[in-house]
Amino acid sequence: MSYLEQLRALGLDLLPVPTPIGNFRNVIRIGKLVYVSGQGPREVDGLGRDVLTQDAYQHAHLVGLNILSVLADALGDLGRVGRVVKLQGFVNADSDFTEHPAVVNGCSDLFIAVFGDNGHHARSAVGVASLPNNITVEIEAIFELRH
Amino acid sequence: MSYLEQLRALGLDLLPVPTPIGNFRNVIRIGKLVYVSGQGPREVDGLGRDVLTQDAYQHAHLVGLNILSVLADALGDLGRVGRVVKLQGFVNADSDFTEHPAVVNGCSDLFIAVFGDNGHHARSAVGVASLPNNITVEIEAIFELRH
Amino acid sequence: MSYLEQLRALGLDLLPVPTPIGNFRNVIRIGKLVYVSGQGPREVDGLGRDVLTQDAYQHAHLVGLNILSVLADALGDLGRVGRVVKLQGFVNADSDFTEHPAVVNGCSDLFIAVFGDNGHHARSAVGVASLPNNITVEIEAIFELRH
Repeated sequence: MSYLEQLRALGLDLLPVPTPIGNFRNVIRIGKLVYVSGQGPREVDGLGRDVLTQDAYQHAHLVGLNILSVLADALGDLGRVGRVVKLQGFVNADSDFTEHPAVVNGCSDLFIAVFGDNGHHARSAVGVASLPNNITVEIEAIFELRH
Repeated sequence: MSYLEQLRALGLDLLPVPTPIGNFRNVIRIGKLVYVSGQGPREVDGLGRDVLTQDAYQHAHLVGLNILSVLADALGDLGRVGRVVKLQGFVNADSDFTEHPAVVNGCSDLFIAVFGDNGHHARSAVGVASLPNNITVEIEAIFELRH
Repeated sequence: MSYLEQLRALGLDLLPVPTPIGNFRNVIRIGKLVYVSGQGPREVDGLGRDVLTQDAYQHAHLVGLNILSVLADALGDLGRVGRVVKLQGFVNADSDFTEHPAVVNGCSDLFIAVFGDNGHHARSAVGVASLPNNITVEIEAIFELRH
């Protein structure tokens, strides 16, 4: 199966590409590296930190889908992805929150489900004081192209 | 016009290069990629989060000028810049702040004004709990050299 | 002296490699660049922000040792490191904390002690609202390989 078919086999599909909420581009390609700007879970804006970890996991899952959507739009075809390189996850979190990795797993799990062995990546996950539009989690990503 | 002439046409000029406030270098070059360490708005230190979004935008604009200044100093000539690749903006923000993109635009707008089409970049913007010297915003950057 | 001998001359040694606390890999290599996932000071978990700057410096030093440990494990030999490229330090900090650079120096100083001139790097240091397992500081790193 192609990566897109793999995504659809999970019951998901690419989403319309969001307009950047600032003066930036969603995707920049430099050689074989592709930098994807920090994406949020557009479909559930405005929830901030008042969500359970299990719900925040689902938001990170949506972030992952948004990352794949802007990536597919920029590349024309997800099949050009060689591998996921790195994620940086910023969780909208109180000072006593400690489960950031469990939140960002929502995105990581999706990428591994779609890309298989090529989905494994390096990652950081931290708790930030606030996020644009009071989203629950923002994640930026680096991918390597196949060629 | 050269990038430097473009900067001066905006009524701006390169600033003296700051001494790093820790055991690091302002600029590291690896092949055609140049990593610029997180810079602050040196000229307005100590304001933290008690500023309006429109003022924080101006601080991000100053950060952009500091980034260009350390970059020009390291490269010898801004003309060697091929393009801006990516910014990461950390805004000193309370938990209910949501306008981070409007702040970081202060840096993005400057880069696009100076570099034109080569100024467009990927970006993340998040709200952090605190910043060195209580600055309003810290931004790190990646550039690609022309050759 | 080799880098490992240099480390041991400091009275330190590589540590057992931690199991990632989420669905990610500690180290991803892309060409000559190596991305190391955000590491914490495993040996002193659970201290959060209630530590003095001088103690947090020691925690960042431990983070540096953990970064070197996962790197050596992935590469087989620290001697393959060409240079340190960039660090990003996230300090678990209150809103009035301003000494983030002094904390992250704990890692930077170690890398410069081990790698010498090849240890100098670009860096950002910010204060975050919370961190996984309430650690004091999380640092991610990029290295360049010798070949």
